[in-house]
Amino acid sequence: MPSSSFQPGTRAWPISLDDVRAAEARIRPYLAPTACHSYPVLDAEVGSGIRVRVKHENFQPTGSFKIRNGVSFMTALTAEQRARGVVAATRGNHGLGVAFAGQALGVRTTICVPVGNNPDKNAGMTALGARLIEDGRDYDDAVLVAERIVREESATIAHSTNDRTVVAGAGTLTLELIGQCRSLDAMVLAVGGGSQAVGAMTVLRALRPGTPVYAVQAEGASAAHDGVRAGHPVSYPSCNTFADGLATRSTYDLTFPALLDGLADFITVTDAEIAHAMRVLLRTTHSLVEPAGAAGLAGLLRLRETLAGKTVSIVLSGANVDEATLRHVLS
Amino acid sequence: MPSSSFQPGTRAWPISLDDVRAAEARIRPYLAPTACHSYPVLDAEVGSGIRVRVKHENFQPTGSFKIRNGVSFMTALTAEQRARGVVAATRGNHGLGVAFAGQALGVRTTICVPVGNNPDKNAGMTALGARLIEDGRDYDDAVLVAERIVREESATIAHSTNDRTVVAGAGTLTLELIGQCRSLDAMVLAVGGGSQAVGAMTVLRALRPGTPVYAVQAEGASAAHDGVRAGHPVSYPSCNTFADGLATRSTYDLTFPALLDGLADFITVTDAEIAHAMRVLLRTTHSLVEPAGAAGLAGLLRLRETLAGKTVSIVLSGANVDEATLRHVLS
Repeated sequence: MPSSSFQPGTRAWPISLDDVRAAEARIRPYLAPTACHSYPVLDAEVGSGIRVRVKHENFQPTGSFKIRNGVSFMTALTAEQRARGVVAATRGNHGLGVAFAGQALGVRTTICVPVGNNPDKNAGMTALGARLIEDGRDYDDAVLVAERIVREESATIAHSTNDRTVVAGAGTLTLELIGQCRSLDAMVLAVGGGSQAVGAMTVLRALRPGTPVYAVQAEGASAAHDGVRAGHPVSYPSCNTFADGLATRSTYDLTFPALLDGLADFITVTDAEIAHAMRVLLRTTHSLVEPAGAAGLAGLLRLRETLAGKTVSIVLSGANVDEATLRHVLS
Repeated sequence: MPSSSFQPGTRAWPISLDDVRAAEARIRPYLAPTACHSYPVLDAEVGSGIRVRVKHENFQPTGSFKIRNGVSFMTALTAEQRARGVVAATRGNHGLGVAFAGQALGVRTTICVPVGNNPDKNAGMTALGARLIEDGRDYDDAVLVAERIVREESATIAHSTNDRTVVAGAGTLTLELIGQCRSLDAMVLAVGGGSQAVGAMTVLRALRPGTPVYAVQAEGASAAHDGVRAGHPVSYPSCNTFADGLATRSTYDLTFPALLDGLADFITVTDAEIAHAMRVLLRTTHSLVEPAGAAGLAGLLRLRETLAGKTVSIVLSGANVDEATLRHVLS
């Protein structure tokens, strides 16, 4: 990995511990801390004397950690911004988080999804009171639609990653975690846009310095991984993984420099390894996770020699798997 | 239903609110409160203007509410009793709760299961440090084995239902719940031994008097239901349901009088209705539940005309479903 040049609190590091603490204070009236459990059976399965601490973001009301990001974003807006409404482009979890926050705070939300988006996720956002706009062929088209609405309605856009309050919101899970784990030697985190990993590094550098963060991407959606390896931002025309929560095809401006600088290592795992990790989690923790939510465990299984004997946290980032995918994983 | 004759705090009612409060104080160092969420998509699916409050005992570290019972039991023992060890007979969730409590408090636990018991559950109890004894053809045989060990080793038996600290432990979930729901018009609860329902009625009678509790059993394991209808205890030679958490074939001395007296209604649901409720929960809440954990929703769906317009709590009592059962439910 490149040598360290960024430090928390300097201009280059995107957010500070104070940003995360402020986000925690803002979200707490709306979101209780999630559980962090140990599972002796999982530890036995992982082996190498590793003690796994499982942070259960799959237990959030919208089924993913993105609710932290959405509530952190929404609570940081001015009254005037709230009055004009919020727009987001999404395939699901980010939109559910924004819609939840909008309902909780009485802010009108508009969620832009591509045509053919998962109907369960669409129904979830609509049930939370969001105006849903199905337009465009893919996520990038939905972003263009969202940007048009922002111009037309003077609304505020809630970017899924490139927003400091979003990354600070994601950081709150690590702030909770270190209060829940007396001992913590490392974290293994999946990266989509990178808000979770950058939030974690921000907290750990300040409060548990020297605690390494290992990042994981899907082999077929490895833009951040490849960018970190290459030392510069990367953008691909497409990506290919069944882990839709990790299906990003470019690095993100706000998080990339911190990923480049702060990670202990960055690995990729195959969809088959992710599916295996989903089955292990079902059997040993009886937790339902979407593919992205199992990528941390898939990464830990890859890293088990490196992390032998350590206490390691993984984050089950989300539960929002559809029945067809679950059937496929179980078969 | 029979007219009311028992009152909380009288000799006939098995436990008091003070017992539940004391249990909560004892378990709190070991168990954080579980989440209670609303899911607008689930509300839409249930219909009739019902607002569902979902109490997530499937999020417990051992995957079921029985951990409350085990920790409540173990923390109430004297130092001398703890030194002599604890024995339990179980098919799974009760034993996991007792084993967890034993590990947390440093008490030797012996768990008796019938031959051929679910290997995942056996592995879970062993990983929690329990001595596992596989002996006997069925649960009743395992109880005899447990009673023999109690005599031989001067250990203390942890009965799954017929123990006041166990029922008080189960009551703590309702104590939490009423702190989490400002408005609560009714609860719909599945009954195996009845600890959860009797615990709930104890709390509600004292703190939310007039709040009805509706009980649900599986059609093929309806001893408590039939006993309440008949007005006297019932015992059958066998039962038949895929909801192993509800597979009881007799009423229990400690809980039966309160069930007889305190319930608003007692209904049965088919295994097919339970499987349907599991699928609804997967789709609308992305929660993994074992069949027993879905019986409350199955009951609520049956009762939706009765409960139209109300705020109703269901308890997802457990998550411990095996892969084969899950595949069967999804197919």
